[in-house]
Amino acid sequence: VTRFRDFGEFSFIDRISQHGLARAEGVLCSVGDDCAVLDRGDGSVQLLTTDLLVEDVHFRRDACRAPGLGHKLLAVNLSDIAAMGGSPCDAVVSLAVPADLEVEFAEDVYRGMHACARKHCVNIVGGDTTRSPGPLVMGLTLTGTMPLEAVCYRSGARPGDTVYVSGAIGDSAAGLRLALQHEAETENGDRDYLLDRHHRPEPRVGLGQRLAATAAVTAMIDLSDGVASDLLHVCTQSGVHAVITEEAIPLSAAFRSYCAEVGVQATELALTGGEDYELLFAVRREETDRVEALSEQDGLPLLSRIGYVESGGPTIEIEDADGGRKPLEVSGFDHFRAGGV
Amino acid sequence: VTRFRDFGEFSFIDRISQHGLARAEGVLCSVGDDCAVLDRGDGSVQLLTTDLLVEDVHFRRDACRAPGLGHKLLAVNLSDIAAMGGSPCDAVVSLAVPADLEVEFAEDVYRGMHACARKHCVNIVGGDTTRSPGPLVMGLTLTGTMPLEAVCYRSGARPGDTVYVSGAIGDSAAGLRLALQHEAETENGDRDYLLDRHHRPEPRVGLGQRLAATAAVTAMIDLSDGVASDLLHVCTQSGVHAVITEEAIPLSAAFRSYCAEVGVQATELALTGGEDYELLFAVRREETDRVEALSEQDGLPLLSRIGYVESGGPTIEIEDADGGRKPLEVSGFDHFRAGGV
Repeated sequence: VTRFRDFGEFSFIDRISQHGLARAEGVLCSVGDDCAVLDRGDGSVQLLTTDLLVEDVHFRRDACRAPGLGHKLLAVNLSDIAAMGGSPCDAVVSLAVPADLEVEFAEDVYRGMHACARKHCVNIVGGDTTRSPGPLVMGLTLTGTMPLEAVCYRSGARPGDTVYVSGAIGDSAAGLRLALQHEAETENGDRDYLLDRHHRPEPRVGLGQRLAATAAVTAMIDLSDGVASDLLHVCTQSGVHAVITEEAIPLSAAFRSYCAEVGVQATELALTGGEDYELLFAVRREETDRVEALSEQDGLPLLSRIGYVESGGPTIEIEDADGGRKPLEVSGFDHFRAGGV
Repeated sequence: VTRFRDFGEFSFIDRISQHGLARAEGVLCSVGDDCAVLDRGDGSVQLLTTDLLVEDVHFRRDACRAPGLGHKLLAVNLSDIAAMGGSPCDAVVSLAVPADLEVEFAEDVYRGMHACARKHCVNIVGGDTTRSPGPLVMGLTLTGTMPLEAVCYRSGARPGDTVYVSGAIGDSAAGLRLALQHEAETENGDRDYLLDRHHRPEPRVGLGQRLAATAAVTAMIDLSDGVASDLLHVCTQSGVHAVITEEAIPLSAAFRSYCAEVGVQATELALTGGEDYELLFAVRREETDRVEALSEQDGLPLLSRIGYVESGGPTIEIEDADGGRKPLEVSGFDHFRAGGV
């Protein structure tokens, strides 16, 4: 007998992936990317993604606000659509609700979710509400669409490509620590900013679409498990090695100041902390100017070159200011091994 | 402060339905039917449905077999596609898993689900697996498609229509009682048949498609909550009254024998017991011959006239052999008020 706590999430996914498909035709991608990608036969694809948020694993009811929770439930799925370069369409929502939950709390979850849905023009078209004898469990499935030839998979990174991330990395990890009060209340004036970056991530849907339209992106993923873990997914799917330039990792002033104050090594927290929901992507070297021009356009976040792709792998090295390299250990995030929030 | 146990599932659904859509165009149906129905703009629609199975609410781990659980998770969603008349396409699966669950149990769940998927030509294209600090929670979202003009909603029943159900009613309710050992072990030789009807419902996908293709069906729903409850949904959505002919309710010999043995009133259990996953539908009177001809075709279940539609309502009466009528009380099924399994 093997228990999940000893087996882990990824071993299980490997095991169940072996069942294969009932009909392979038209399935461009199933397990192993941010979304399933299904050929609609008219030059477009359907994208399909689903994510669960489980109380006391992904959130604590007493350490978050209900509208933020609803926002996040949709946002993490939007981020998966963004990682393919797609446009989100329709969502269905499942709730398993403890009988003693306040109805107002669940209504506020929906309020936050609908505000996010309106912003991204997503219809919430149905769902299932049932009782839970344990934690509050919330699931959301989101569809999307995009041109078939523009889809950005994890698997296309090639030696010579430049690696980018959007926005600033690590804010969410700092926000989580603040939310869980790993440190006593700080004087840090950026506390609310960091908490907000954790509780209300802004999925990069517009950026993903713009990047896909350049046809210069060879691989893309959203940052949910952390830069190290997620870049390793790209390396594994693409069969390449990646080098991260330590100094190039974009860190917000608030994040630097938080790390200095509490004595945490900033780069390490930035690379291993999850839930940034920024985009990480590889670009052909000759196309980098064209891609970097995007970051100057209205409403798009900063794009930062954080490294490059080499042959070999799937492994990652980190390069310091003097050009010295060392392997980056990637433990991967496993809910069955991690303690949870 | 209002708690879910005092408020109920349906009041909550009414409340959250008021948020509306981000873009109304192309949404033919959202909340209030078996599936969401989305116009694809090419004469076809996309169907979208989702269902959760929660341990100790929908099933007990010690009273079911894992492959049957996987079968049922997909089957209940297939039944929703069947109720529109559609063809199922792709599924994503979410699991929140207790850390001490045996991996073999979850693998068996997948084995049962994949066997059902192969039978109905459904691709399982992804999902999310995470830890649960409480019960095993399983969610599945299923897409489907069909011609736009053939979709069978709940809302089209008209006075004069004839009401049908497929198959036999009540077997699943008897099977549930046997599974939960409401009665001591019986000598009933049909025990395995009744248990199987509860644990491994056969969704009526082929029948739903054939019925939709006749263009004679004015309203359709799948039987998940029970004939009384589900027919009332049709009456409410259609704005009509329905009369059920008591003697016409199709009961299997196994079910009759079980009810006689344990002293349960058969009609009452058949009308209020849920999870039959048969189809209930209304047909224009002049088309009944054409629809009944279907039941003689290979592989389709028996179709039984169980009543008719009148103006008024939304209410239901039950008519006995002498033509006497009495109102049928419908309590509705609410997970927050029911005790669960």
